[in-house]
Order: sequence, then C-alpha cells, then structure tokens
Amino acid sequence: MNVQGLEVDAGIMGVVLQELAVIPNDNGPVLRMLRPDWPLFAGFGELYFSEVLPGAVKAWKCHSRQTQHLAVPVGRLKLVLYDSRSDSDSFGRIREYLLGRPDCYRLLRIPPGVWYGFTAIGPEKALICNCADLPHDPAESSRKPYDSLDIPYRFALSEKSVNDVLQKTNCIR
Amino acid sequence: MNVQGLEVDAGIMGVVLQELAVIPNDNGPVLRMLRPDWPLFAGFGELYFSEVLPGAVKAWKCHSRQTQHLAVPVGRLKLVLYDSRSDSDSFGRIREYLLGRPDCYRLLRIPPGVWYGFTAIGPEKALICNCADLPHDPAESSRKPYDSLDIPYRFALSEKSVNDVLQKTNCIR
Repeated sequence: MNVQGLEVDAGIMGVVLQELAVIPNDNGPVLRMLRPDWPLFAGFGELYFSEVLPGAVKAWKCHSRQTQHLAVPVGRLKLVLYDSRSDSDSFGRIREYLLGRPDCYRLLRIPPGVWYGFTAIGPEKALICNCADLPHDPAESSRKPYDSLDIPYRFALSEKSVNDVLQKTNCIR
Repeated sequence: MNVQGLEVDAGIMGVVLQELAVIPNDNGPVLRMLRPDWPLFAGFGELYFSEVLPGAVKAWKCHSRQTQHLAVPVGRLKLVLYDSRSDSDSFGRIREYLLGRPDCYRLLRIPPGVWYGFTAIGPEKALICNCADLPHDPAESSRKPYDSLDIPYRFALSEKSVNDVLQKTNCIR
C-alpha cells in the first residue's frame, strides 16, 4: 500500500517505517519523501545522497545525536539495523528492511544509538537519500567495518538476488 | 570545479547556482545537497523527487510564493527558466542550465515568479530532487503546457544529445 501516513511496526524502539506516495505521470512519477508537518519529522539539518553500486556494502555507521530520515528513490537496498542501546526494549535486535522501487518506496527513520548498514540489491545501482535532523558532525558518528565481530550480522558480499532478500526480510509484500 | 560554496552568476534575478561536493567512495560516491546554514537556504517545507524518462519534457510550472532548491543526483537534465516578473531586471529572459551527473552536479535555487521546465538528456532516466521552502499548495502554483505560446521557448521533444545541449547552454565545461 502506498498510503501516506501509514506507519508500520519497524521492530526496533524508535524506528519508524512509513509508506510514501508515488504519483504516476506519463513522463515519470513524482515521489514524495518528507514534510515538516509529518508526525515522524525530527528536524532538518542536512540533505545528501549516497549512491550504492550493485552488490556493494556500506556498513556500519551509528550516530550519538543525529536522527536519519532515509528513502531510496532509485534501485533497491537491503538496509540492516542493530540496536546497541542497552536501555532499549529491543537491545541486541537485528532487523532487515527492503527499501526502494518499485514496491518498497518508504521512509525509514533511525534514531541515535542504532547501527545501520546497507547493500544494493539487483543489477542496478541504488540511490539512498538521507535528510538528517542535524548537520554532519564527525564527532557524533561512529563507524565499524562491514564484517565487524561486534555486530551479530554478516553481509553476504554481492548479495544481488532480490528474491533471496524478499524471502528473508520482514518487508515481503 | 566541485567547490561547495561557489555561487555562479545564474543570469536571472534571484536565481542561484551553487556547485555541490561529490565525495568519492569505492562503493559509490556521497553527494551533498543542502544545509540550513548555507547562505542560499530559503527554508524547509517539502522534500520530493521527480523522475524524468529519457527524452520526456516536464514543463511549465511557476510558483507565487514557494522557492525551489533543485539538484539532479541521477542522470542529466536540461532545465529552462523564463522570468515573467515585470519588475525584475531580467524580465523576459530565458536561461538554460545543464544539471546532473557526472559533470554538472549543482544546486539551482529558483525564486517565486520564474517559470521552469526540464527535459532528460541522454539515454538514461534522470532524477531531480526538490527541497522546497514551503509545503505543496496547489493554490500558489501555476502550470502551462510545454508548448505554450506565452513562453518564448520551444522544447525539442526527444532532445537526447548531450553534446547538442552542451554546445547551446551556458553550462559548458
């Protein structure tokens, strides 16, 4: 369902998943992403894109203060979260999400303290847009390598099969 | 030059063209777009994308109150402006801009009262991101067909040659 305003249980405390509207047009669709009057909006601090080549992995990253608003207007990504907040109800939990076109165009809000990483699925490159609530500040972000033993998740390099991911994730539709 | 903060004379009063940083990465680059502490920032009201199929034209549109912040993170667009403000120093002027990857990744700010339209150049679809300063409000936007006689500009349908556009526009590099 592409119903704006629908929030899906995202499985990790403070994470919000919201379907986004795609408005068809013969010359190419319009894709909504974010408005300051939406309940999930945390603030506007910086807008940037990250292009992900087919099969490439970008992981792991975590912020101590910044909240991320993410959507994938081109291609498809598998995005993985790991909750490292010891005071969270979902502490230690891993969740996978499929984000992108044409069937999973949705907004994912990630709060501080949750590790995230992603990989492009399928033959085409993907584009992820991040509208963060605070400007980039290297002092509040941490990184770990994609194969860090600190996080109980293994990215399969060149994980290019959409069907494999659809079968495994909680974003099957 | 990909120097953030550089503003190029954009030829129409109130229009700002700023080069944007592209940060290379083996897994795909990071592309900056907008921050509220940049001098050209007019406000955050709505964030959306418009996909443009190869050769397709999306034109014309004009806003009475909303300012657009536009960038093209995927593909290439020729964007055309027409200044219809009778009290503007550039009243009646037409300008063409090339926006997109890999050589024209830049931010274009369009003030109210300036008509805009665009067409995807080259064989791939393009994606334009608009971070407008006010939420969408149909009461403050006007449209005309792409071939309207009110605007002294003709879009050539299926204008797919990048070299043709590069030779004609003021964005040659």
